[in-house]
Amino acid sequence: MTSLASAPKAVCLLSGGLDSSTCLALARREGYACYALSFDYGQRHRIELEAAARVAAAFGAERHMVARIGLDAFGGSALTADIDVPKGRSTAEMGRGIPSTYVPARNTIFLSFALAWAEVLECRDIFIGVNALDYSGYPDCRPEYIEAYERMANLATKAGVEGRARIEIHTPLLRLNKAEIVKLAHELGVPFGLTHSCYDPGADGRPCGQCDACLLRAKGFLEAGLEDR
Amino acid sequence: MTSLASAPKAVCLLSGGLDSSTCLALARREGYACYALSFDYGQRHRIELEAAARVAAAFGAERHMVARIGLDAFGGSALTADIDVPKGRSTAEMGRGIPSTYVPARNTIFLSFALAWAEVLECRDIFIGVNALDYSGYPDCRPEYIEAYERMANLATKAGVEGRARIEIHTPLLRLNKAEIVKLAHELGVPFGLTHSCYDPGADGRPCGQCDACLLRAKGFLEAGLEDR
Repeated sequence: MTSLASAPKAVCLLSGGLDSSTCLALARREGYACYALSFDYGQRHRIELEAAARVAAAFGAERHMVARIGLDAFGGSALTADIDVPKGRSTAEMGRGIPSTYVPARNTIFLSFALAWAEVLECRDIFIGVNALDYSGYPDCRPEYIEAYERMANLATKAGVEGRARIEIHTPLLRLNKAEIVKLAHELGVPFGLTHSCYDPGADGRPCGQCDACLLRAKGFLEAGLEDR
Repeated sequence: MTSLASAPKAVCLLSGGLDSSTCLALARREGYACYALSFDYGQRHRIELEAAARVAAAFGAERHMVARIGLDAFGGSALTADIDVPKGRSTAEMGRGIPSTYVPARNTIFLSFALAWAEVLECRDIFIGVNALDYSGYPDCRPEYIEAYERMANLATKAGVEGRARIEIHTPLLRLNKAEIVKLAHELGVPFGLTHSCYDPGADGRPCGQCDACLLRAKGFLEAGLEDR
């Protein structure tokens, strides 16, 4: 790894899933010194955070910070509360309405912490692996949402006010389907085995194979003609 | 207190200072069932949170939630890190540039948690006691910032996507000066003694009298012709 002392910095949101890991790999390939940011938000399982730490290390992130935030106190999502994670749905069913795995205002909160860290690091680039195709049911994965967030972010910060720099929210996966993301990840050398996508893993950490995240991932690998390992 | 079972709900950001307390009192007078939200963000002193709890109880908030968020991990502010709180500044000096007490992206993070709670409560109203006059140095207290936030919030949420309700960010103090806020607080029966404004209180909890917040508060009371007690 070459020295990153003079490289531009980027804050990269990293859940440890395939999408955010691919996003981090892309930011590294573009030459950014990456500050990976994960959240301990009372999600049901910790295996996601372990995956994030492995991926951050694998791609030589400058730092990996895990911010603790008590989103579970609000309730309202299958990922934080005692609501069942839906299983065995078709992609048509997934595309209908907002799923129970939606966590209220999650990306808004995640981006806000990224913005705070970016401001302290004096960096203007934030990467987030949102995707408008496979997660069309999530309001905070849509391009118009990201554009509105970026506009707000540039009014919220010192740098924006002083005209020093424009905050940019990078969403390189926004318009890719899962198969395209799998191919891109493969090309970037993302070690698939280190990433974790399942919403409801077993006690041993193995993916359930039936939640929306597992089904989309399997479909992506199938269509990409690649093996998930 | 009359029953609030059928009253519209509002999430009210509450620091325990004079401004946010006045804002909560206003929301109550307008008939909202108030869900007060404070943050334990590694600020140097806890007296703010004690003040917030007293004020929430005094105004009959339905609930008072304290969300723990690790903003101190990012550093970069006199309110969370080992940077000195400026003392004895004139209002002209306060108006020049962004003060060291600015916490990066603070209001953006606070509003994002308020948005998450509002979404779970199925409520569309959020109150925040920002003020564009006395805190003109803070980028996230300006009207254009609040407008951009509201626009983003309506793209971020289920309700916005489904066209069920519009999120509204209420900023009733935005264009008031401190003397006007003091008069309004007095009219609303805000118990001044329960509120806390100082950025750097002594070990006994007494205000320092010399930080920007203390000086602005004293000036406001003087100009309003009221006593701070």
